[in-house]
Amino acid sequence: MTIKAIGYATHDPKKDLVPFTFERRDPRQQDVVIDILYCGVCHSDIHSARNEWGGSSYPLVPGHEIVGRVQSIGEAVSKFKVGDLVGVGCMVDSCRHCASCDEGLEQYCNNGFTGTYGGKDKIGGTAHPFTFGGYSDKITVDERFVLRIPENLDSAATSPLLCAGITTYSPLKHWKVGPGQKVGIIGLGGLGHMGVKFAHAMGATVVMITTSPSKGEDAKKLGANEVLLSTDAAAMKAEQNSFDFLLNTIPVGHDVDPYMLLLKRDATMVIVGSIEPLTKTNGINFIFRRRSMAGSLIGGIPETQEMLDFCGEHNIVCDIETIAIQEINQAYERTIKSDVKYRFVIDMATLKA
Amino acid sequence: MTIKAIGYATHDPKKDLVPFTFERRDPRQQDVVIDILYCGVCHSDIHSARNEWGGSSYPLVPGHEIVGRVQSIGEAVSKFKVGDLVGVGCMVDSCRHCASCDEGLEQYCNNGFTGTYGGKDKIGGTAHPFTFGGYSDKITVDERFVLRIPENLDSAATSPLLCAGITTYSPLKHWKVGPGQKVGIIGLGGLGHMGVKFAHAMGATVVMITTSPSKGEDAKKLGANEVLLSTDAAAMKAEQNSFDFLLNTIPVGHDVDPYMLLLKRDATMVIVGSIEPLTKTNGINFIFRRRSMAGSLIGGIPETQEMLDFCGEHNIVCDIETIAIQEINQAYERTIKSDVKYRFVIDMATLKA
Repeated sequence: MTIKAIGYATHDPKKDLVPFTFERRDPRQQDVVIDILYCGVCHSDIHSARNEWGGSSYPLVPGHEIVGRVQSIGEAVSKFKVGDLVGVGCMVDSCRHCASCDEGLEQYCNNGFTGTYGGKDKIGGTAHPFTFGGYSDKITVDERFVLRIPENLDSAATSPLLCAGITTYSPLKHWKVGPGQKVGIIGLGGLGHMGVKFAHAMGATVVMITTSPSKGEDAKKLGANEVLLSTDAAAMKAEQNSFDFLLNTIPVGHDVDPYMLLLKRDATMVIVGSIEPLTKTNGINFIFRRRSMAGSLIGGIPETQEMLDFCGEHNIVCDIETIAIQEINQAYERTIKSDVKYRFVIDMATLKA
Repeated sequence: MTIKAIGYATHDPKKDLVPFTFERRDPRQQDVVIDILYCGVCHSDIHSARNEWGGSSYPLVPGHEIVGRVQSIGEAVSKFKVGDLVGVGCMVDSCRHCASCDEGLEQYCNNGFTGTYGGKDKIGGTAHPFTFGGYSDKITVDERFVLRIPENLDSAATSPLLCAGITTYSPLKHWKVGPGQKVGIIGLGGLGHMGVKFAHAMGATVVMITTSPSKGEDAKKLGANEVLLSTDAAAMKAEQNSFDFLLNTIPVGHDVDPYMLLLKRDATMVIVGSIEPLTKTNGINFIFRRRSMAGSLIGGIPETQEMLDFCGEHNIVCDIETIAIQEINQAYERTIKSDVKYRFVIDMATLKA
């Protein structure tokens, strides 16, 4: 027995997403079946749909910023009950026995986590060898990988917290950003706008670092205290050696040297966006003030829950534009042009329209 | 009044070093005058003599790995007495009032430390606007920048501790290398051979990472437990995700990606040699295991003293080849060809030969 699901898939890297019917597994004892209400549109969805990173399998149903309500549960499920508002992020499984999984850092699973879409499905129970994501009406997920969503927030606007939110929250927490610190958020998109909100909520003095004066003004509305235009060489020079932490959300390869110089001695810049070659990196900028550059990948399940609870307490959600699923292909084009503030979210009720 | 000194200088980036007569300042209250016994030959000396980094001033007397005996002291000197065995490293002054100086991290002085040679001399007292280094018979230095050298060690072989030693000791200590850790030392030269000795003495399992099987064998004699040939793609792949720390002593720009992949989750590679553009650096290697790359510059005066004391306790010195000052120009050529195990040290008695 399986559950019939409907959604949108792409069958070819060069083609649009189209309606698609497929299977979800019947819940095992520890599984939760979720009626999906909303799914955010992450730039990764586009890279995967178009096979821009290689390795995509088709048909491909994107979506890893999922919010919905529990429709049914397996008998061993202890964390959730029918009707609960829940979320699923970038992972639906991991090895569960390596050192990273034991620490709740499933994103760094030594044996590789299972992505919410396009991942090799080790649990099985359907005819599909690869996982299908959240551009669909329902999903079956092991409760370990299901998150509780605060009921006091706008549900649609919480969905991008599951990827854009945790990707920025995790490094800010790991590197202990807080009051008294000057923190720069580089780039204002889906990730950057959440970085500004979180760093502000954590009590830091937040500087938006951007090429665009208008983005700078937008960032101030989100909580940034100051704006630093990276195109202003004199301003960049004046701000050298002044930052306690930098969160770099630039999504492509770039010259990191001008940003590294902004760091104080012993400070760190964390890259969360650019999973490709950095065009310039000079050792001297690291050596002369013992600076560090690090990377960070989403966050583990316990920390994702912590982030969602933090958002509930601080009334933090993403700034979104809601779309119908039928608008997804146009939304991809607009996302590529950065023509969205700051995330599209699919209202999944439109699937049945 | 000044002190007459003799040494070797270069007067032009394209010319050899030749005998040179100049002035040292008379000791102020807090100054120590040192009769130089030995001076190590650092690759930086060559870069500076030949103006390969730009900004060199001529005449230039190189040398910042100085060991000698106290000849006289100013009346306020409290740390040293006449006859003490002492050393001077890369710095002879700093602003002494910034946050870094207050922490004893003069190498990161916010206002710039004064290099032992070629630095703008803020103290003055001679006709020379720039500092002159250790390829000479004597030097006058503020006691804050003078180190105590353990008497139980071979004095000539201690001189490179003042640069090559502290440059490798400082990051190993700062990143808390110790027992139970697998530590890779990348590159076996003046810096790398000290990295092996220190990491071994600190109790780590030491892996020499080199392109050269014969250097690997040499490293084992210095304390390395294993050798990893960076040219062996299969071996490099097998060792991915296994290192707790990497000390990268490669002195030129290079592709850091294969080394970054060797690091475990949350581990750090520290660059101490390459003060130039790194040719390849891919963000994905940082992001997927939250790895870091950092830099580190020599060490502060208190930590340099700690390192020298550690060497005294553990009987650690550099492996050196002693030369007469008249052989300095040939020694430069051999250093450039890595034809030295692992540091030339000038016996300054030969100055008067």
